Amino acid sequence: MTVASSITIRRARRDDVGVIVRMLADDPLGSAREHPQDPVPASYFRAFEALEHASHIQLMVAEDGGAVVGCLQLCILPGLSSQGASRGLIEDVRVATHCRSRGIGGLMLQWAVAESRAKGCKLIELLTHNTRVDAQRFYARLGFQPSHVGMILRF
Amino acid sequence: MTVASSITIRRARRDDVGVIVRMLADDPLGSAREHPQDPVPASYFRAFEALEHASHIQLMVAEDGGAVVGCLQLCILPGLSSQGASRGLIEDVRVATHCRSRGIGGLMLQWAVAESRAKGCKLIELLTHNTRVDAQRFYARLGFQPSHVGMILRF
Repeated sequence: MTVASSITIRRARRDDVGVIVRMLADDPLGSAREHPQDPVPASYFRAFEALEHASHIQLMVAEDGGAVVGCLQLCILPGLSSQGASRGLIEDVRVATHCRSRGIGGLMLQWAVAESRAKGCKLIELLTHNTRVDAQRFYARLGFQPSHVGMILRF
Repeated sequence: MTVASSITIRRARRDDVGVIVRMLADDPLGSAREHPQDPVPASYFRAFEALEHASHIQLMVAEDGGAVVGCLQLCILPGLSSQGASRGLIEDVRVATHCRSRGIGGLMLQWAVAESRAKGCKLIELLTHNTRVDAQRFYARLGFQPSHVGMILRF
């Protein structure tokens, strides 16, 4: 797996919101859900501001030579089950189409695992759409088990 | 669906931890994961204290005539995807064995949906183990779609 040595994983900034939204929109599921027009709709910036005040959530980006090429959101959740184990919840993982198969997703997940461990988590959980079979293979290679059904209620 | 009028949904208190742990342990999956001995292991109380400081998470119980007969944890998560929609994450839903089929789970979910809407969420998500087919039917009746694979990495 070749990974450009220039890639860094860092916290997302307000001026990354546009490129993150375009990555979220750049697939069949996302294109139906997102509004990636220019200027970026205010609802995305309101969400970014909420994330800035959520100390339990980190929205991260992968940056390659100054360009944002990936994103991932990690939430640390305490809970009673599994003997009071905190868990990490990973959401909104994307790698820019032209940067796939370079190990960027792996680097972001490696960061998320290390961060979850550092925060005392005993497990990480995520939901990935039934149709994202490549993503499921990617997570399985990292040791994730497809042991659960992910269910969603949209209002 | 008959629901005893005496049932209330309220925030969990420290002295509920023991009964919650026993409900979490009271099935084949939970019995392998939990340690429901008396006194309750300190790890559960440490987790409860973390929950008390997590303003984004509510650990709730269903109480019937003074007895705790169900539990549910709801986390409110901001995020950029779905046009900056916050979402609710439901975890650790249990109803005491002797109180099933009385609509207590439905009452707790009804609370979680109302609370998620009140906090501006556009969706609720959850993971339920592949083997919990009754739970999957229960959530499907409430409108949840099994559109995702729930994947877990345990350390």
